[in-house]
Formats: sequence, C-alpha cells, structure tokens
Amino acid sequence: MRNHKYKVSIVGASGYTGSELARILINHPEVDIVSITSESHKGKRFSDLHGQFSGIIDFELIGADDVDIENIDVVFLALPHGVSMEFVKRWADAGVKIIDLSGDFRLSSPEVYEDWYKKEHTFPDGFENAVYGMPELFFDEISTATLVANPGCYPTASILSLAPLFAAGIAIPGGAIIDAKSGATGAGVKASNTTHFSNVNDNFKAYSLGNHRHTVEIQEQLSFLMKNSVILQFTPHLLPVDRGILATSYLSLDKEMDQESLTSLYKDFYKNKPFVRLRNQAPSIKEVRGSNYADVYPFWDERTKRVIVVTAIDNLVKGAAGQAVHNMNIMLGLNESIGLQQVPMQP
Amino acid sequence: MRNHKYKVSIVGASGYTGSELARILINHPEVDIVSITSESHKGKRFSDLHGQFSGIIDFELIGADDVDIENIDVVFLALPHGVSMEFVKRWADAGVKIIDLSGDFRLSSPEVYEDWYKKEHTFPDGFENAVYGMPELFFDEISTATLVANPGCYPTASILSLAPLFAAGIAIPGGAIIDAKSGATGAGVKASNTTHFSNVNDNFKAYSLGNHRHTVEIQEQLSFLMKNSVILQFTPHLLPVDRGILATSYLSLDKEMDQESLTSLYKDFYKNKPFVRLRNQAPSIKEVRGSNYADVYPFWDERTKRVIVVTAIDNLVKGAAGQAVHNMNIMLGLNESIGLQQVPMQP
Amino acid sequence: MRNHKYKVSIVGASGYTGSELARILINHPEVDIVSITSESHKGKRFSDLHGQFSGIIDFELIGADDVDIENIDVVFLALPHGVSMEFVKRWADAGVKIIDLSGDFRLSSPEVYEDWYKKEHTFPDGFENAVYGMPELFFDEISTATLVANPGCYPTASILSLAPLFAAGIAIPGGAIIDAKSGATGAGVKASNTTHFSNVNDNFKAYSLGNHRHTVEIQEQLSFLMKNSVILQFTPHLLPVDRGILATSYLSLDKEMDQESLTSLYKDFYKNKPFVRLRNQAPSIKEVRGSNYADVYPFWDERTKRVIVVTAIDNLVKGAAGQAVHNMNIMLGLNESIGLQQVPMQP
Amino acid sequence: MRNHKYKVSIVGASGYTGSELARILINHPEVDIVSITSESHKGKRFSDLHGQFSGIIDFELIGADDVDIENIDVVFLALPHGVSMEFVKRWADAGVKIIDLSGDFRLSSPEVYEDWYKKEHTFPDGFENAVYGMPELFFDEISTATLVANPGCYPTASILSLAPLFAAGIAIPGGAIIDAKSGATGAGVKASNTTHFSNVNDNFKAYSLGNHRHTVEIQEQLSFLMKNSVILQFTPHLLPVDRGILATSYLSLDKEMDQESLTSLYKDFYKNKPFVRLRNQAPSIKEVRGSNYADVYPFWDERTKRVIVVTAIDNLVKGAAGQAVHNMNIMLGLNESIGLQQVPMQP
Repeated sequence: MRNHKYKVSIVGASGYTGSELARILINHPEVDIVSITSESHKGKRFSDLHGQFSGIIDFELIGADDVDIENIDVVFLALPHGVSMEFVKRWADAGVKIIDLSGDFRLSSPEVYEDWYKKEHTFPDGFENAVYGMPELFFDEISTATLVANPGCYPTASILSLAPLFAAGIAIPGGAIIDAKSGATGAGVKASNTTHFSNVNDNFKAYSLGNHRHTVEIQEQLSFLMKNSVILQFTPHLLPVDRGILATSYLSLDKEMDQESLTSLYKDFYKNKPFVRLRNQAPSIKEVRGSNYADVYPFWDERTKRVIVVTAIDNLVKGAAGQAVHNMNIMLGLNESIGLQQVPMQP
Repeated sequence: MRNHKYKVSIVGASGYTGSELARILINHPEVDIVSITSESHKGKRFSDLHGQFSGIIDFELIGADDVDIENIDVVFLALPHGVSMEFVKRWADAGVKIIDLSGDFRLSSPEVYEDWYKKEHTFPDGFENAVYGMPELFFDEISTATLVANPGCYPTASILSLAPLFAAGIAIPGGAIIDAKSGATGAGVKASNTTHFSNVNDNFKAYSLGNHRHTVEIQEQLSFLMKNSVILQFTPHLLPVDRGILATSYLSLDKEMDQESLTSLYKDFYKNKPFVRLRNQAPSIKEVRGSNYADVYPFWDERTKRVIVVTAIDNLVKGAAGQAVHNMNIMLGLNESIGLQQVPMQP
Repeated sequence: MRNHKYKVSIVGASGYTGSELARILINHPEVDIVSITSESHKGKRFSDLHGQFSGIIDFELIGADDVDIENIDVVFLALPHGVSMEFVKRWADAGVKIIDLSGDFRLSSPEVYEDWYKKEHTFPDGFENAVYGMPELFFDEISTATLVANPGCYPTASILSLAPLFAAGIAIPGGAIIDAKSGATGAGVKASNTTHFSNVNDNFKAYSLGNHRHTVEIQEQLSFLMKNSVILQFTPHLLPVDRGILATSYLSLDKEMDQESLTSLYKDFYKNKPFVRLRNQAPSIKEVRGSNYADVYPFWDERTKRVIVVTAIDNLVKGAAGQAVHNMNIMLGLNESIGLQQVPMQP
Repeated sequence: MRNHKYKVSIVGASGYTGSELARILINHPEVDIVSITSESHKGKRFSDLHGQFSGIIDFELIGADDVDIENIDVVFLALPHGVSMEFVKRWADAGVKIIDLSGDFRLSSPEVYEDWYKKEHTFPDGFENAVYGMPELFFDEISTATLVANPGCYPTASILSLAPLFAAGIAIPGGAIIDAKSGATGAGVKASNTTHFSNVNDNFKAYSLGNHRHTVEIQEQLSFLMKNSVILQFTPHLLPVDRGILATSYLSLDKEMDQESLTSLYKDFYKNKPFVRLRNQAPSIKEVRGSNYADVYPFWDERTKRVIVVTAIDNLVKGAAGQAVHNMNIMLGLNESIGLQQVPMQP
C-alpha cells in the first residue's frame, strides 16, 4: 500500500467543471488537491467563487505559472477550448498526466478540429498521443495514456446510447437521429442571454440545428466502432434545469430485431462497466443527478421497426468531471470506481 | 349588427381546459358565459376552484342537469374522454353547437377509438357528424358543423409541423419521427405521481414509448392529407414547465429539396392562416405562451438530406381552449380571430 | 365619442417594462402605439428583440431623437434610473404627458434621491410637478398630472399591504417588517451573475439586507399617510420564478384589533378600487400573474397580537407596466380599468 | 478497532426521509443497512420505488414485523407522526437505539403534543427518555440516549438562527419573527394539490398563518435556552424548489448591539460545531443543498436596531436524514462528522 496520496491540480477554477472536479476529488481517498488555478481570480479563496465550499476548500487560487508541475501527478484542465491546447503544449513533456476537459483533442485530427471549431489549432502534435477518454470504449488505451481528451457531454450520452449497435455493425450508417436535451449548465458559468434566468425558466427550445460541433465527435466515434463512415442527425435542446442530458435516439437497423435480442446485445456490450446502468424503463435525468451513472434504456418498436434508445447522464459528472476522475483512476491503476460512488440526488 | 351576445356554457369546471376557456371567453366581445358546470363542486363559486378568477367570475357552479340547453348557442365539453361522449349523445339533437375537447370523437371510427383508448365507445353514431376541429385544415367543414372534435395538443403541434409535406405528397410515408416535449399541464389538473412537483421539477423524461394514443390521431390526419397510409414514430417527453409543447420532427422526402423551396411550400400552405406564424429560426415555447399561435420553423439540413421542423404551441390554448374558441368563431360565422388576440406572455 | 385614438410612444424597447407596455397597449381600445425607441437597437424590428411579438408588432425601432413628440399624447419612459431624468427634462415643456417608470421622480426630493441612489440628480425641478402614480392613493392628483412617477414594484406591494393601517394612524411607526420576495424579472433583462439561470433556479436567497433603496420609497409614502415619521424594515429575496412579488408584512398596532375589524378597515379603504382584490386567504403570486390585480390578505394573529398582511402582485404589471397604463387611463380621463382586464394566467 | 460494522435498519421506505437516509448511510464507512421496511410495498425492491438506487440498493423491502430487531444496533423511524409512536412503544425495551424522524416525541409533553397535533398520543411514557436531537444543543444527552427525537426541518433552521441570542438572555421574549421558506419536499412524497407541479412551479405562497405546528417546537426550545417563556411569530412559505429552507428572522434585543459583537456571540456559541458555518453574507439554499451544513448569517441593522438572521439548510439533510445520522454517530461514539462530508451540490 502506498503511504502517500497522489497530488492533483485543477487548472481553471471558475467554471462548473472546475467546481465539480473539486466536489468529487475533495472526498477521493487516494488523492490530494494541491492547487487550483485561476488567472482572473488569483489571490481569492476558492470558496469566495463557490460559496458551497465555505469551510471545505478555503485555500487561495494561484496562477497557472505557479503550479509546481514537477510535483503533480495529474493535472485537470478545466478550461475553454482554444485555451486548453496551450497548456497541453506547455506541459506535454513535464511527466505529468494530463486530463483535458475541453474539446481541443477529442477529434481525429487538427483538420477536422479546424473545420468544426472554426479556429486554428496551435498544438497539432498533441493529437498523436491523445486518447479519447471514454472508459467503456478505451479502457486499455486510457490506462497507459499521458494525455486524455475527456469526451463532450452530448457525445457521452449519444455514444453510450448507440455504441452497441454500431459496434455490432447492424446500424444503417445514415439512419441515426439523436434528439438531445441538456440542462443550462451545459452553456457554462458565464452570464449571457442564453443562460439568463427568464429566457430559460418555464421555457424550452432547440438550437444549433444541423451544425452543433458535438455532431462530428459522435460521428467519428461511431464510425470508428462500425469501421464505416457514419452520418448522423444531432439536435440539441435547452432544458430549464441545471444539470442533466437526456438523449432520445432513433435508429433503423439492417436486420431483424426484437426486444429480447436488443436487451442482450446491450447487456453484453456493457458487461462489467460499472457506470452504465441498463434500465428496463426510460430513465429520467434526476435518477442520475450528481452521479457518474449513465442510465441506458434500449427499446424496440415493433410497430415502426426502429430502435429507440433513451439515455440519461449528469452532464457535469458523467459528461465531464466524473468521467475525468474515472479516467484518472484508470491512468493511476486504481480501482476504476473509487471516489465515484455518490448516489444520484433525487429529489 | 346583432343586438345580443351568443350564450355559451362550459361543462367541466375543474380542469385546465375549463379554466382556460373561461379566461378567453370572459373577454370575448361576442359571447356571454351563462353557466359553468361541475358535478363534484356544484354550489361552489368558480373562483373558489380557480383563485385567479376572484372578482371576475364569482358565480356558482351548477350541475350539468341544470344547464338550460335550449337557450345555449354553444356548449364546450371540458371533460375527460369517456365522460364526454355521454354528453354528446345526450345533446346531439338539442340544436346546440357542441365543441368537445376530449378525445372521444377525434378518430375516424369507434373501432380505431376502442383499439387505442382501450374503452368501449357508447355513442358510435356521433362519428358521422363529428368534424376534426383544426381550422387550418377544415375551415369549411367546421363552419357548418354541429359537433366539433377539438384536436389533441400533441396532434395540433405535430400535424401543423408536417401537414404541408404530407399534403404535397412528397413525404416518405414511414419516414416521420416526431420527438415531442410537453409541459406538465398536459397531464391534467389531478394530483398524481406523474405531476408531483419533485418528480417533475429539475427533471425530464420520455414516456409512453411507441404507444401514446395521440400517435394514431396524427397518423390518421397525415394519411388523410397524403391519401396514403402513414406510419409514424411519436415520442412524448415531460418538461418541467407548466405550459407549452415543442415538437421536433424529422422527415425524409422522396424528392430533392432546398431551404428556399421548403420555406415557400410552408408559406403557401399557411397563407391567410392567422394563428400559424412561420418563423425564420427555431421558436421557443415561451414565445407562444398564453396565446393561440403556433410558431413553425421548417429547416432543410443539406448535410443529412432531411427536413427538421420545430413547432411551438401552448398546449392549453392552441392545443385546447384557444383552438376551441377559434372553432366556435368559425361555427358562429364570426371573424375567426376575434377574442384570441392575446400577446404571448414572455417572460 | 372621439373619432381618433390617443397616440402613445414607448421610450426604451429592450427591457421587460417596454415589452410589457407593448403587450398591454397593443390591445388597448383607445390608444395606438405610434413608436417604440431604442438607441442600441434602432433599425431592428421590435419583434426581433422580443420574438413573442412576431406578426404582431413588426415595425422598426427608432431613436428617441426621432420621436415626433409634438404629436404624441402620452410617452412612457421605460428606461433605467439616471437615464430617465434626462428625457423628463427634455420633454417637460413639450405638452406631452409623461409616465416615468424609473425611480427618478418617486421620492420627495433630489436630496433623498441622491442619498439612496448614490447619484446626482440632473433635473431637480422635475420633483415639483411629479405625482406619485399609485391610483389607489392619488387618483385626483394623477388625473391632472403631466408627469407621473410610476411606483416601484416592491413599494407597490408593500404600500398596498400597509396603507390602511398607517392611514388610520394605528400602526406603531417603527413596528413594520416587510419580508418581500420577488421573481427574477425584477432584476431586469440584462444578463448578469444575479440572473444567471443556475444561480436562480432551485435556489433562493435574501439580498440587500438593511439597505435596499425601495425602503425609503415605502417609508415616505407610509409617513405621508400617517403624517408621522415611519421607519421600517424591508428585506427583499430572490425567487426562482419569472414574475411576481409576494410581500409578507408584520405590524404591531397601538390599539386592540380583531379579524373582523381588520377586514372592515381594509374593505373601506379599498372600496371602489378595481385592482385591489381583498382575499379571504393568503394569495399566491400565480393568482395575479400577467394581470394588474393586487391581491391583499390582512390577518390578525390573536396569539401574538400582530397583523400579518400577505400581498401578491405581478411585478411587471401592477408593479410596472399595468400600473403605468392605469395612470394613463386616469390622465386621459378614460375608464380607469380599460385595457387592463386580462385574467391572471394560472397555471 | 471494531472488526464489524454497526447494523442499521430504516423503517419506512417510501418517503423522502427514507431515501435520504439510504443515500447517506450506504456510503457511511461504519454501518451496514441490513433492512428497509415498507408495509405497502413489501416484496418490491427499494430501487423500484426510488430509481436512483438502481444497481446500488436492489434488495427487497420487508415488513416491519420481519425486522430482526435483536440484531440491529440503530433503527431509524422514517414514518408519519402518529404512526411512529407505535414503533417506539413496541421497541422501547428491545435494546435498540431509536432515532425517530417524526414529530411524535419532539415536544415537552403529551399534552402539548395533543394540543398542537390534534391527536391522542398513545405512548406518553416515551417522553421521559426522549432527547431532542439537535447536536449543537444536546450533544451530551444524545450520546447516552436510547430514543432521539429528530428535530423538525423548520425548527432546525429557526433554532440555529436564534439560539445564541436566546441563550444569552438578550432577546425580547415576544419579539422574534421568523419568516421561513421551504422547498416542496417538505410537504412529503405523497401527491396532493399542495404538491401538484403546476400549483408550485413559478409560484409562491404563504400558508398556515399563525398556527403551524412547528411554532411550538421552536418556542419550547428557545424558552428552554432562555429560561423564560417565549412567544414567537412563525410564517412558513412554499418555494418552487425541491429542497432547502431559508429562514429570515427578525429580533429586537433588550441591549445595545453592533455587528462585531453579534458576530462574536455567534462564533462563540457555534465553536467546534462542524455543521454550522457562520457566513459573512446571506447564504442561498443551493450553497447547502444535499449537505448537512447549516449556513448562518447574523446581521445587525443599525438603522432599525434589529438583528436579522438568515439561515439556510437542506430540509431533507440537516433538517432530517443528515441530522439523524449525526445523532447516530454521537449515540455510537463515532466521530460526529463521519459519513456526512458531502459537498453541497451547486449548481
């Protein structure tokens, strides 16, 4: 047994992924949070930014330049895309394990990135080592990775919904429609018209029809699983809730199916995956709130001959900070579930 | 100019359709509400049930037996399905115009009704005269009808979304997927686990996968428009909001399309329809809240070669009481918009 | 009967008071909205800013300089305090009736204003003519006024709660505590941390303890009614709702009281006041939502010998735009209720 | 070190206190949940009732008769008042430590109980041994108790707000006003008009003016602290949120005060109380959500010479299940904070 804890640093204190990482890691039995950074708030206490941490994490925020990177085991980048890549570049050879929660290294190449993110990529070399951090698909690769690109929230829900069917090669490559709904925290901590209370409360809308950048992330992973080029329809919507993504996916298959076979296929695929819970009815987002679970319900509609899959995750946990800690556990060779046993908070 | 107002009665005081009818009709310049009925609350004042009417409608509720049907011009049945058919039967020959807000006469035949509603129909003869009360499709039939079956809330949003494409005969008959989301008032006024605050608030879920009874109502109308048998996928979800339906529909066509042609097709179809607002971006439900508008946004996705239509209505107004008053206006030969000019309440 | 409608202009299009004025005035039978102004959005259509007005008010916003003030009967200033006073100054002698919805002329003097608003007042002369626009207290003064200072939202609820007791001279001058709760629209249309969805949703907090500037507005009016100097405790809270203020007020009296006498006192005071509804149980904010009603429930607690008054208003209507239109009706010599008959929207 | 865990049983599975106890206890390092009971759902799995426990607690519910009480260390009664007393009676001599989350043994005598609860008490003898389970006041008594009456949610927030001032003997005995606001879970898991979504959402109201039964519980504890008879005003309100109580309390003192002295008084009183966090600004309910913290902010208003105290708790945790586990820790001689370190979940 090790007689010390691993040292971790969180870079980027002000956003929700930063505070969620802190919420999970502060009670993780194998790690110590040794620093949290913020350029705009350095010198303030972490609990000044996030009042819920009063008396829990009261130490001061430091600048990223002051992170003692040589003595850190794992660094979490909780930064906007475009900013994150600079830190990956800077610390690529520092011997620290990096978990990047931004979108900067999730795609297959700098070219695809630039095409969908409309932004030049300043560290194209990073793509070579980056592993897509979805433990249900890439456990082995993650266990030896030094740079993990933590998946997006919508892609996490979407890929977990459809992976078994695409991996089995029975999906029609252009036949998937993902109608996804996310809570407002998905739009970030920054005040804007999009997140103004009276624009969200008692309201609901679709956005980014046909062009949301998570589309390509989902397409790439499903194409990889199917070994075929997948085109899919992805429509995000904004829910008047804080947390949670519910993805309702529709898919036509190229073979006969029934409920029993469908259930079996999913059970086999997610065997021994501790955070995927196969449900026997459509889950609600509150049944996973605050937890790292992805609740997946595959349904065969005999009348229309379509598969419908309903998946619920907490976008800030399984869709961000929880999955990041899951990746950390695997990278450090720990029990993959350790520190992630929070029961979903309902009501 | 007539020197009197039309006399109307609302049968069924306790539900949301009853109170919404009262909200609209009390300010309608051409009608007087002469009675409101309730079997379980007779003797109480209407404002005892619905506090918002204090000082506005304070008269007493009567039993349906005490409605002076001979002297009523229009009766609104704001009753549960199964109960409503009894009143239609009773008053079918009384010379009163009947607008039934239940599902009892919306479908094509008693057989289809019994198949989807799992209930015997006790007045099959009613189907002969019943007109499906969607003014955008059946204005002429409504104008001479004595019994109007007011459409369901989901069907209103769904049919208005897709009617132009099915009427044009260019939809693939099995190719429509309607992913619909409704506020909790759609589940009615009665307290239940489904509508318990902490089960709905900050939550979201799908329900009735593959078998919601509004599916057949939509299918029948679209089949009628296309003169072909349509099979469609309809998935309802429960939003943590009071009012509003947003339907996101996906459809593949059997011909080439582009945004401009799609927009034209919708503009032509809804020309001179005062309550359909064609939008140039996806509407939100609050932009129609409290009003009789249906906001429709058809979008062509060139990448996936699919039409996506986003439609927003208030389920209690355009999806129930407002559409009922619209039908009444047409049945009485009034200006179809009169009394329905409420501006949507946002925020 | 006049053969024309009054011409009104709304100065300040982007905020909630601007859009609420438009919502009410567009259906007002005696006025035409001839212009709406915005400096930052001029050239855009009003419905571009407020999607709910699509097809209803699609005309273009103009700059305030382009308002044809000579031909306007009433101008509504829906502007922030500090900005509003400039327009009052500019149009003070233009012959137009001005209704100012800001806080610039609500207090008794420029000195009090500067003390609580921490801002120099640039048009002190305006105070001479300004009438405090609460029709229940100053109907006659309003009917001849050329400048009406429309009351604040919290003061409207608070003053209506306590006016009968202070006017009767039986309140203990330092004994009133008003614990008030407001929806998020009270914080305005501008995105900020205060109004960020995830900071408000499923949350609740007190703010401005001991120093909210509406305190002095309430104190001045109650002092005026009592002809004595009143000091009161006012604590605002932020509710996770869009609209509505609920004020719970506590007051000790200097004489014996019972429920019956208390009710009588309030009934007499609010006799023939069409928008004050005395209730016989504590009202909820949804029972007045979207309407100009103030629902007031005075309760005598025999055990503690205190009066508790619970009052509910819609902060954007009775607390702003509705009360402004009420003032307009009185200034123009119209029926005071005209155009303000909207039934509260519940649910 | 003990080589076994304590065995606990939860009696009453269907309510929110039951599921919250399970949420906390399942991750408590020193206890095993050996049974959960339900009379109406026996035979079902716990996770059938509370979907969030899928894969976490899937064992079957048993009837209370089947609890192996001899081998249980601590039993939690998560039952309605009136029912709970029967179980206390039954197991009073069984050697098991009982923590009763109902109101049955919180008051000073059966007579007071019957006066405020309007119900006969069937186990008056229980009052002798019952200890009021507020660890900040009765740590020593709890440590040796066999029956703990877990405090009510409103009393927890209210007493923690005012205890330092009453204990110091400087409060005016009739001068406290507590204006309290609670989330809807306070009304329980059972569907009713009170908890119907559209009656709560976007709404707010006061209820039980002057006669809420928690009043007497607060009065008794504050009287006990002050050694004087206290009469207080308590007004509860219903917030459109799931969890959380915010109590805003107003109090006049019989001596001079200033902010610094007030803060010191509270700091001294709550020294070494791990779950009371003295804040330097008014807390919001989300800053304690899901946690056992009570955030207390005492404020001196020099203008009005009153103390205002704002306190936030999670009604289901510090106001119920968390405080119960805290009591259990003390009764078992464990570290009082163990198993209760959850960081508040914000957003």
